[in-house]
Amino acid sequence: MILLEQTLKNISSGDKEAIKKAWERMDSLSKPIGSLGKLEEIAVKIAGITGQVKNKINKKNTIIMCADNGVWEEGVSACPQELTAIITDNYTKGVTGIGVLSKNVGADITVVDIGVNGNFNNDKIINKKIAYGTKNIAKESAMTREEAIKAIEVGIEIVDNLVKEGYDLFGTGEAGMCNTTTSAAVISVFSGMDSDSIVGMGSGLTEEGFINKKRVVKEAIKLNNPDIKDPIDVIAKVGGFDIAGLCGCFLGAAKNRVPIVIDGIISCAAALCAYKLNTRVKDFMFPSHLSAEPGSKYVMNEIGLKPCLDMQMRLGEGSGCPLQFSIIESALAIMNEMATLQEASIEDSEFLVDIRK
Amino acid sequence: MILLEQTLKNISSGDKEAIKKAWERMDSLSKPIGSLGKLEEIAVKIAGITGQVKNKINKKNTIIMCADNGVWEEGVSACPQELTAIITDNYTKGVTGIGVLSKNVGADITVVDIGVNGNFNNDKIINKKIAYGTKNIAKESAMTREEAIKAIEVGIEIVDNLVKEGYDLFGTGEAGMCNTTTSAAVISVFSGMDSDSIVGMGSGLTEEGFINKKRVVKEAIKLNNPDIKDPIDVIAKVGGFDIAGLCGCFLGAAKNRVPIVIDGIISCAAALCAYKLNTRVKDFMFPSHLSAEPGSKYVMNEIGLKPCLDMQMRLGEGSGCPLQFSIIESALAIMNEMATLQEASIEDSEFLVDIRK
Repeated sequence: MILLEQTLKNISSGDKEAIKKAWERMDSLSKPIGSLGKLEEIAVKIAGITGQVKNKINKKNTIIMCADNGVWEEGVSACPQELTAIITDNYTKGVTGIGVLSKNVGADITVVDIGVNGNFNNDKIINKKIAYGTKNIAKESAMTREEAIKAIEVGIEIVDNLVKEGYDLFGTGEAGMCNTTTSAAVISVFSGMDSDSIVGMGSGLTEEGFINKKRVVKEAIKLNNPDIKDPIDVIAKVGGFDIAGLCGCFLGAAKNRVPIVIDGIISCAAALCAYKLNTRVKDFMFPSHLSAEPGSKYVMNEIGLKPCLDMQMRLGEGSGCPLQFSIIESALAIMNEMATLQEASIEDSEFLVDIRK
Repeated sequence: MILLEQTLKNISSGDKEAIKKAWERMDSLSKPIGSLGKLEEIAVKIAGITGQVKNKINKKNTIIMCADNGVWEEGVSACPQELTAIITDNYTKGVTGIGVLSKNVGADITVVDIGVNGNFNNDKIINKKIAYGTKNIAKESAMTREEAIKAIEVGIEIVDNLVKEGYDLFGTGEAGMCNTTTSAAVISVFSGMDSDSIVGMGSGLTEEGFINKKRVVKEAIKLNNPDIKDPIDVIAKVGGFDIAGLCGCFLGAAKNRVPIVIDGIISCAAALCAYKLNTRVKDFMFPSHLSAEPGSKYVMNEIGLKPCLDMQMRLGEGSGCPLQFSIIESALAIMNEMATLQEASIEDSEFLVDIRK
């Protein structure tokens, strides 16, 4: 609890002075004001994070939290639970979606076992197992409050360590059968909306399975009755270890003042939990693509973020993060390298006014 | 005319057999079918272009067609006409938006003077000047039919030469005051829609200027009365040299069977002209972002394409192309490097059915 408390206490907002200076430079570049849209906003937001107008990313890393969910026994996933362990293991071989896409942009991945129902003989997986999966939220709390805190602190600690290794841009991914179910439950609680409008199809559910999934989420919320004012209670009662761990990553990134990318629906649920614990984390968050899961749109609106990519991706894994890393690096290149109006020989004051209107 | 005729004759569709084989491999990869969305579609479409399932981009280039438009004298731009020449010159210095973003992804640019109202002393600008700008479409045809054909052939020739130099992925950019006006005119003619719903704000027009721009486009179409069945007539009467040249680039890319990116509204207008000349070009086209100009959405729907990026960009220059190049290379990496279900030890046939459902 000490690490979580200290982390929450040490999150400040974006640096307003740096943001102001960054907009001044951005608006002095040889282009109509605002014409590079989200690229401009990203570059300025990162100035607010680092306190510097010009920035460069040195090392990128997508943190992948892997865990099982007890609610699997309710038949809310089309896949066998063992797939979580297989996928977790496969991540370390570099041939999954996130592995291939990361390599393509020179990014690394960090695979964390935060609660997989199985054991690994693989030193590329960081063992931070809280338990062999959570309990079934349709029958009881997913985990204890202590476990939730411990899982959040795992995320903080992982980020702390990676920052020490020089990583300065993070992504967030996961593996875990049924984690679209737990994510929908978490988002539904915070939204206060009917959970039926938040629950999505996940990976390949039948219509029957989808109806069952909606029923399970609704009943789990009713049974556990989490306190909407207490994000840790929400995570403990209807969340998962992956969501908790990623929530910790968002908090850790904000504390360390490094940008972090929100990706699929599980990452969205975790980002929402972090935001509810400390709204300042939003100054450090960059969404990648809009997930096909309906809860994603709610989270984006609630935090006030707009994704850059519309890829119709629904793989999970954090697979949108490497794509967003490229966009972020493009945004920084604009800030660092584009000529100002003056440098571009557009000096006439009439000119200046005209094209900046 | 011979080059244009031969080019139109030598454009074939995507290779159906390669597309089939590419989908077979894509669907055998260790992910739920379709879960990588547009990344999957891009990789398969490129297989259709090259005839090979696995592909790699060697050299990327955004071709920038620069030209002036006589309609400038109607006050439809907020900027002085001389800005076209200044921007054209600046492109070669690598410090404009497209220059910086290209460098960031290892791409090159090719700057073409196809009709700028000015002379350059800069050997980095390819001189293919048809005239010192077009005529004023509010009063007469922008250019003669012969000039339109010549400008289209410039685009084809530029692509032919770059392909010989080993470039195998193209982008399309431009510079030219008032080219959102001519683009809106061209798109309006083909759409048959009221041009008021196609004309956009361009770079920084006042409300008064916007009303004037809508009036000019409407009158130019009425006065010149282009033949909707004859795309060359449409370009000649209400288009511009930049639109014609880029139209040639799309045709040239299709003939040479290399992918080409559609970017802003001028590129959209040119892509639409190419599509109207030969619908098969669509198999070679990849949109980047959705332009803020209203005509962009019409063109995407008409050709049947869906942009990957929602960046609220409206700089022009082809500035979205380098971002799309990265997405295309990510898509190819997935096809080339991701493990199949079998390689990923997901061998159990029940498994296979389950996660591919």
